[in-house]
Amino acid sequence: MRKAVGIDLGGTFMKGAVVAQGGEILVKDEIPTRADEGAERVLERLAVMIRDLATRAQVPLSELAGIGVTIPGFLDRKTGVAKEVVNMGWRDVPVGQLLGSALELPIRLENDANAAAFGEAIAGAGKGRVNVLCVTLGTGVGGGIVLDHRILHGQSDMAGEIGHIVLDPEGALCNCGHRGCLETTSSATGVSRMAKEAVASGVETTLAQCEEITAKDVFMAAARGDEAASHVVARAIERLGQGLAIAANLLNPDIIVVGGGMSRAGDALFHPLQHAFSRYALTRVRHAVQVVPATLGNDAGVVGVAHLAFE
Amino acid sequence: MRKAVGIDLGGTFMKGAVVAQGGEILVKDEIPTRADEGAERVLERLAVMIRDLATRAQVPLSELAGIGVTIPGFLDRKTGVAKEVVNMGWRDVPVGQLLGSALELPIRLENDANAAAFGEAIAGAGKGRVNVLCVTLGTGVGGGIVLDHRILHGQSDMAGEIGHIVLDPEGALCNCGHRGCLETTSSATGVSRMAKEAVASGVETTLAQCEEITAKDVFMAAARGDEAASHVVARAIERLGQGLAIAANLLNPDIIVVGGGMSRAGDALFHPLQHAFSRYALTRVRHAVQVVPATLGNDAGVVGVAHLAFE
Repeated sequence: MRKAVGIDLGGTFMKGAVVAQGGEILVKDEIPTRADEGAERVLERLAVMIRDLATRAQVPLSELAGIGVTIPGFLDRKTGVAKEVVNMGWRDVPVGQLLGSALELPIRLENDANAAAFGEAIAGAGKGRVNVLCVTLGTGVGGGIVLDHRILHGQSDMAGEIGHIVLDPEGALCNCGHRGCLETTSSATGVSRMAKEAVASGVETTLAQCEEITAKDVFMAAARGDEAASHVVARAIERLGQGLAIAANLLNPDIIVVGGGMSRAGDALFHPLQHAFSRYALTRVRHAVQVVPATLGNDAGVVGVAHLAFE
Repeated sequence: MRKAVGIDLGGTFMKGAVVAQGGEILVKDEIPTRADEGAERVLERLAVMIRDLATRAQVPLSELAGIGVTIPGFLDRKTGVAKEVVNMGWRDVPVGQLLGSALELPIRLENDANAAAFGEAIAGAGKGRVNVLCVTLGTGVGGGIVLDHRILHGQSDMAGEIGHIVLDPEGALCNCGHRGCLETTSSATGVSRMAKEAVASGVETTLAQCEEITAKDVFMAAARGDEAASHVVARAIERLGQGLAIAANLLNPDIIVVGGGMSRAGDALFHPLQHAFSRYALTRVRHAVQVVPATLGNDAGVVGVAHLAFE
């Protein structure tokens, strides 16, 4: 069984795992990123973690297929350079070269959303499927498209940006500068924002008692029968169903995998989502696809990026 | 130079051409389909036309790379069967087998929208590009996606259905049964419908003088300064820009090719369309892509489907 290392590089933590082809995680670890120490020092500590992971998994470094690293920002996959990682202050860091010469292994970089989508498509909820759309409901709404077992990157590495499709040109202002993007209503942030607006408008709701209103608070209040919260949840899910149906009419996938923090709401999300999706997708598109929860959770990134190293 | 035959099968006419690899049409012809004679007789006459085209192009049949046939309905590409062609009354017609045995050549079937998109991507406005989205503004809004020089079919041959992405859930009823699909506002039919509604609402417009209001009438009236017509044109283009931007955020193409009857409006369409597109697409998506007119016109289908036969 071939093995590779997947690294999920984040602004706060670096997670790593030795992953067997097929998706099994043999060992994993997590250390603080400490981006303020500078890229070279961060990558030195990362190389130490990788050696340590290989030792614990009892795999000689030289027998690894390679190392995959997710980059939370813009990158050049061909040269292995992290072009711009805002929350780590990185600009033009030759991650592939620095790690590759330290470990004498091929290094593959991928952005975090695509890596997670690839993980779910190859070894998670999309395993065995051909055309996979992955959507992550978190602070924003992320997306990744895997067609025929390959990530769709597009012309400038921007493919899959479902969070920024504009559904309501008169809607709320999005971080991207446009109005009414899908993520203004259907991310955790969007749900929280709509709930706060409901409270501010003076409607009667138990949410008025929360100090900070999170998406989880809103889903819980809706489950208790709070009408204002139910209305917010319904709106978030209706727009998500519309957005997924739009993507499905374009891509005609065989599976849509929905992950991220908000997907933990389970049936309270997926039942109405499937109905909403059906209201907007073409019949033949709808019949060809399932909308399902992600199965790899926070491991999707390391599993996906490790699998890129197998290629 | 390799050559192939492309056939554009329509309910009224069958068009055929001998096409050189690269896109040049050497000879072409068109005969009535006469679908009422039955599929076998139609295909017999089609085989005669193909032999005649080869003779005129001075290419022995055996030297052709193959025959590509567009089917205006549902088909099974692997078995070469036209599953259902409503406007010709065809059901489960083994086009590949019947034509193939008559001509002793490989036969490739493709639906008409994908064939036209492939033609523009390989030999038309998208020549040399990698990720191409083609949109046709006619009775409906058709679409085709060509990624890395291959047509994206999707799980049930439905990929590229941009005409049925729902932009306005409260909008006009579409033939597909949903409300507010892109084609309810941005097809020739949609423009005509909105103009008729404007006339019926009693606003002052020169369109009131038209017996039947076509999309062309509306564009011409707008060009003359008719305010109601300008409003209809602006709305059609605004929604089209939004729809193209949504598709672009998902696919990150390097070119979007817009064809079909309404694209003949030229700058009156493309100037405002580019502005509208910019208002809805992510900056890095917008910077990677051009929105351009199709160049092959009605030949896109035969050119595209002939090129499938080269594969």
